[in-house]
Amino acid sequence: MARPAEATRQNILAHAIDLAARVGLGGLTIGGLAEATGLSKSGLFAHFGSKDTLQVRVLETAGEQFVDAVVRPALRAARGEPRVVELFERWLEWGLGQAAGCVFTAATFELDDQPGPARDALVKLQRDWLDTLAQAARIAVREGHFREDLDAEQFAFELHGLMLVTHESGRLFRDHTSTKRARNGFERLLRDARRPS
Amino acid sequence: MARPAEATRQNILAHAIDLAARVGLGGLTIGGLAEATGLSKSGLFAHFGSKDTLQVRVLETAGEQFVDAVVRPALRAARGEPRVVELFERWLEWGLGQAAGCVFTAATFELDDQPGPARDALVKLQRDWLDTLAQAARIAVREGHFREDLDAEQFAFELHGLMLVTHESGRLFRDHTSTKRARNGFERLLRDARRPS
Repeated sequence: MARPAEATRQNILAHAIDLAARVGLGGLTIGGLAEATGLSKSGLFAHFGSKDTLQVRVLETAGEQFVDAVVRPALRAARGEPRVVELFERWLEWGLGQAAGCVFTAATFELDDQPGPARDALVKLQRDWLDTLAQAARIAVREGHFREDLDAEQFAFELHGLMLVTHESGRLFRDHTSTKRARNGFERLLRDARRPS
Repeated sequence: MARPAEATRQNILAHAIDLAARVGLGGLTIGGLAEATGLSKSGLFAHFGSKDTLQVRVLETAGEQFVDAVVRPALRAARGEPRVVELFERWLEWGLGQAAGCVFTAATFELDDQPGPARDALVKLQRDWLDTLAQAARIAVREGHFREDLDAEQFAFELHGLMLVTHESGRLFRDHTSTKRARNGFERLLRDARRPS
């Protein structure tokens, strides 16, 4: 079990992730967080020190949650196409389950022109995710599920694009067909990636 | 020629679009804009009245620029696949040419949870763009370039996803291969959409 100080910290971070997904990382202030958690500003400063540290910790903590919810369970699926499918389905579930939207996607288009530790942390997380997708595709090639000449990074690039538009369609347009459209696009990606039988 | 007041207004809006793409629409304040333009806050209030109006005018003006740079020229291309290609290529050029990134994409993931006039304006613009893509695909079906059973809205959805990831890859990762990846993905989309010969 987490020590009390650690439990408090985790509780604060949960509020902070939610706030960041709603108003953006830039809108995540120590003052706003004090309001959301009922804690004092000075107490929050004691935990995080600066806004930069708070932003980086929010991204890292959300990253750990994403790995726990999406990446780790998918690694238990069989190597090859089943694992690629599991990554996609877990991601879909995770994306839809976020009450306030995806903190990474919101941060991506917010921080692209704002150099600093938060941007660096985000670039690392997004690269890790694209690498995870590409690596799963490479394994599917080795397992004989996907064709030998598949460009695994291109596959990851297009799959990630599908995820971004699904997120936009679901959150901005409140379009209930977005899950179905995501699955259609994913099926087309798989069809092109598979070894001709 | 624009009247002086209108020219001033256009000049302010150009600064505002640039600022919004860099720091987000939420970060676009009358104060920040006063700094960027050298105009007084009271003068800016006289032009725009409220932050809401300013945000909506920024989105609408950027939307007009987008139509001038991307949609209108593409309508001069031949109906069918050439027009779809022209929309894609013009969009690519437009996306890469924005010094501070795409104001629509930044706003999309910022405003998805923030109801109000700016979100409404954005939803309308993004829907118009997806409709434009789907309509171009439908015409390509009618012209016999794309297959009869093509789901034009699915085509638009996937194409838009490709655009989002290209933007992310180019701006966040500063990845110079993103244009090539975008073209590869677009080629795959076209291949699947074409009528089997």
